[in-house]
Amino acid sequence: MTTLVDTSLRDLLTAFSSADPTPGGGSAAALASAVGASLLMMVAALPKTRSGSDEDRAALAGAASSLTALRHQLTAAIDADTTAYDHVVSAYKLPKATDDEKAARAAAIQRALRAATDVPLNVMRMSAQALDIAKAVAAHGHSGASSDVGVAAALLRAGLEGARLNVDINLGGIKDEAYTAAVAAEAQSLSGR
Amino acid sequence: MTTLVDTSLRDLLTAFSSADPTPGGGSAAALASAVGASLLMMVAALPKTRSGSDEDRAALAGAASSLTALRHQLTAAIDADTTAYDHVVSAYKLPKATDDEKAARAAAIQRALRAATDVPLNVMRMSAQALDIAKAVAAHGHSGASSDVGVAAALLRAGLEGARLNVDINLGGIKDEAYTAAVAAEAQSLSGR
Repeated sequence: MTTLVDTSLRDLLTAFSSADPTPGGGSAAALASAVGASLLMMVAALPKTRSGSDEDRAALAGAASSLTALRHQLTAAIDADTTAYDHVVSAYKLPKATDDEKAARAAAIQRALRAATDVPLNVMRMSAQALDIAKAVAAHGHSGASSDVGVAAALLRAGLEGARLNVDINLGGIKDEAYTAAVAAEAQSLSGR
Repeated sequence: MTTLVDTSLRDLLTAFSSADPTPGGGSAAALASAVGASLLMMVAALPKTRSGSDEDRAALAGAASSLTALRHQLTAAIDADTTAYDHVVSAYKLPKATDDEKAARAAAIQRALRAATDVPLNVMRMSAQALDIAKAVAAHGHSGASSDVGVAAALLRAGLEGARLNVDINLGGIKDEAYTAAVAAEAQSLSGR
């Protein structure tokens, strides 16, 4: 199967538009943050910096290094979110004729929902990290690229907010109260940016 | 030349990340809104509606029709923004040895800046329209897809905000005061959503 990231943008937009539930909002949120991180990398890579100082260059090199890793992981999350959602749908379709089947199905649903929560939770964490890095890029990057930093921040906030909606919707079906309490608290903390 | 929309998502993210100034924030803003409009189309196309009523079905059919046109135009704006920016760069590189050359160059810069303002201004208009349509999709669409509507709205707001930054930065170089006043007023009005 072709992955979403190896699909042309035109075909990807068609896939988002179709009544098929995947790809959906979770993959779209990861995509927004991946584009945001990419734009910050561009500004960090420009030959011009804010003042041309060694301090600018060092700060932007540090930002670029962190952003490279974040972009890689956010890109992987675009497909991971769709895969995780497909597993939830498959788990709900498991047989439930006997008590054993019912127990196995319930356990599979719980495992799948947890995985489908962990993907957007990680997107939230990475988007929050990239938003912190955006401040350094704004402070040390070329002032002519300030609109690119602004667009990047808007996309990262949309990715953070969109991932939060996907965390919340999956968390509603998870029965492990210690897990749901910990995730809800972390999601709340990450959203206040 | 391959267009951005015919590029794989993976290669597009690499292009956004590179020190080459295009594609930049303007194309990224159009992309965010194109994904947002696509997600709304998905929800409008689902077999399930909010209450299963004929009213739901009619409202979602109307939304889908408007969204199809908006998605088409927002997708075109992804490449149009990059083309418009490239024309601004080319205009600044025109010769300026003689008075005639200086006048021709100044006029070319003004034309290019105006085109580079009109593209994100249109992205703002279309994002605002799609945000209005999102309210109808939220009211009449399947409640199980509410997180997809929420992600769509977050992306459309990011697209609107990002396009605004690109309108503002280009408007700064335009000398036609009647044009700049009209665009600034419209951008301000569209942003208040």
